[in-house]
Amino acid sequence: MKATKRTMGINYAIRDVLLPARELEKKGVDVIKLHIGDPNKYDFKTPKHVRDALCKAVEKCDNGYEESEGNFELRAAIVDRERKKNKVDIGIEDVIVTNGVTESIQMITAAAIEPGDQILAPGPSYPSYMEFARFFGGEPITYRTIEEENWQPDIDDLRKKITPRTKYMVVINPNNPTGALYSDKVLKQMTDLAGEYDLFMISDEIYDLMTFEGEHHSPATLAKDIPMILCNGFSKIDLLPGWRLGYSVFRDHNGELAEIKDGIQRQLRLRLSANAPCQMAVIEALKHPKDHLGQMLTKLKDRRDFACKRINEIPGLSVQKPQAAFYMFPKWEGKRWKTDMEFVLDILQNAHVLVVPGDGFCPNYGKGHFRAVYLPDKEILGRAFDQIEAHMKKAV
Amino acid sequence: MKATKRTMGINYAIRDVLLPARELEKKGVDVIKLHIGDPNKYDFKTPKHVRDALCKAVEKCDNGYEESEGNFELRAAIVDRERKKNKVDIGIEDVIVTNGVTESIQMITAAAIEPGDQILAPGPSYPSYMEFARFFGGEPITYRTIEEENWQPDIDDLRKKITPRTKYMVVINPNNPTGALYSDKVLKQMTDLAGEYDLFMISDEIYDLMTFEGEHHSPATLAKDIPMILCNGFSKIDLLPGWRLGYSVFRDHNGELAEIKDGIQRQLRLRLSANAPCQMAVIEALKHPKDHLGQMLTKLKDRRDFACKRINEIPGLSVQKPQAAFYMFPKWEGKRWKTDMEFVLDILQNAHVLVVPGDGFCPNYGKGHFRAVYLPDKEILGRAFDQIEAHMKKAV
Repeated sequence: MKATKRTMGINYAIRDVLLPARELEKKGVDVIKLHIGDPNKYDFKTPKHVRDALCKAVEKCDNGYEESEGNFELRAAIVDRERKKNKVDIGIEDVIVTNGVTESIQMITAAAIEPGDQILAPGPSYPSYMEFARFFGGEPITYRTIEEENWQPDIDDLRKKITPRTKYMVVINPNNPTGALYSDKVLKQMTDLAGEYDLFMISDEIYDLMTFEGEHHSPATLAKDIPMILCNGFSKIDLLPGWRLGYSVFRDHNGELAEIKDGIQRQLRLRLSANAPCQMAVIEALKHPKDHLGQMLTKLKDRRDFACKRINEIPGLSVQKPQAAFYMFPKWEGKRWKTDMEFVLDILQNAHVLVVPGDGFCPNYGKGHFRAVYLPDKEILGRAFDQIEAHMKKAV
Repeated sequence: MKATKRTMGINYAIRDVLLPARELEKKGVDVIKLHIGDPNKYDFKTPKHVRDALCKAVEKCDNGYEESEGNFELRAAIVDRERKKNKVDIGIEDVIVTNGVTESIQMITAAAIEPGDQILAPGPSYPSYMEFARFFGGEPITYRTIEEENWQPDIDDLRKKITPRTKYMVVINPNNPTGALYSDKVLKQMTDLAGEYDLFMISDEIYDLMTFEGEHHSPATLAKDIPMILCNGFSKIDLLPGWRLGYSVFRDHNGELAEIKDGIQRQLRLRLSANAPCQMAVIEALKHPKDHLGQMLTKLKDRRDFACKRINEIPGLSVQKPQAAFYMFPKWEGKRWKTDMEFVLDILQNAHVLVVPGDGFCPNYGKGHFRAVYLPDKEILGRAFDQIEAHMKKAV
């Protein structure tokens, strides 16, 4: 019994690399895992008031199905948050709550992409945008982001890649996997292009409050006239990735997104609802001051500085300093390895550190790199880079 | 900006009917809602030990991402449960945990159905099987179930509908929307057909412990040689539909389902994981004796008897007595209404009771019917049927 082309074509480098790591662990090897963007696997914890809110919710709500579009009170809190943060003119009917941002990405793609349609995603990019485009018969096209300019988008390249089949432009800012924070100038150039070619934009802002230098500005704030879907969630900022709660906001002024929203709402009803008690609990996360964030950013900034310094000391490795989130995207060089996967598997087998192949984030602009998180403490990070350095010196 | 054909074609009658009911409620009308299979909306509550387990889990687990296939300990508990209940020879690697059974249905369909492929689902059927088949470019075909025989499948009709493009046969037993419990004889005839034509079976068993007369037997117990995917979940039996946790079990003996499982696992990794603390909490639901179930079944049986008696007293309505779950699928007659939707909207507007059009469960074998739950207490059910009766007498 054969599986379909659409599913056998799915690759998700971040979790696919876990399979060989598990084999190694079965043999008793201690693998340092820098592959996954899960702060809770290290010394970050869901804030107590949010954990308490889940306990209260399971007593207070009926634990039955929620509204398909999301709990009403939660959506009202999201409207408040987005109005304040991004100055968008939206109502409750413009918000949907999904099983993580991933479900938003899946549903938007399903509603917008007919076979043969193209999407524009940054290269490198979080894989789901490209994978779901392919899954639904579309063609993901990546626009270059420039490593030497701290991974800012290459506007000339972006313009060249717009075709009559292009449906939308994806912006991931702060960026996963590079940690780039885009300048207002670049963002304005992108929204201008979207306007010129009648594209809508998907703006993935899940790391918006997690910046070390500068502040995040949404393209929705900078360009009032471009139809946009903003994607955000609670996983990273509120430290509860395992709760799987994200949301999307539809921002248009003349109903340009109305039909696509309808196509998404039909999918939402078919899958009934997102998790009910967790939805009620994250209302508390939105309403409570984000006391934990300052300390988290201080820790992360320190780890980032340490990680970048250590990587740039290792012959054959170099990295641009990320300005946001908790990822870095170092470049590797060396004749021993032909592909990113060869490099990653060699580092896994011999240095016992798990990172993700760069071409898993874009076959063109990700190649010759890997993604690693700097979430662990400096003792663990130090050990990881010592082991990588020792092996690379031997291997070259 | 246009939405895709695949999404604009989605219909989910159970939630689509909610939209006109909400309009009515906005005008201050009290609508009795018999449309949705959510026991927690009535006088059924998640057992205390399971609610407590969620509180414990949010303190104990890291609230980070889970394994894509599901929490290891939960999958081990599911293996135990399925070995005992259905005598299936399976291991942990044969179990996946999903966002409700719905996500299992979606992923199985995505992995098995290429454009033009057919699936066989009971008529009437829970809509998701047909909707997802269409969503992925396939053709859902329904086999007749016979109202006069308490909605047992028509084996001759089933045989006639198998074609070279048929990929799998769906069994929903106990059935939603009819409440039928299939006999061993009928199930054996179905598995024989699957064997004869080299089809695998999807057996939806989410109401398996919720029977009033007779016991549920899985086709997996009755036919050891047919590759099967068993779908089940915690929503109904354990009274936590809003937690959105289901699972699937792959049962084959010669790896017939290996590639389809791979296609599903790729989708699981792409969507990261199901809810982490809720997964940990339902381990408790599996391991604890089901003390609440006896009382629940007593209440439901009493309400079923009352509801069937009242419906059969109303001129123009008749119903077969369901043997399981909490749905009934009455037939309506009357010249005033041309379609099921006309009937349902008229009952909504004038009797203020919300039920689901029968053709939403199958355009052929569901037509001329509606689905209603008998979850509310007899006082509410009585009021609903009084209002329906008064209106139907006036209307005919």
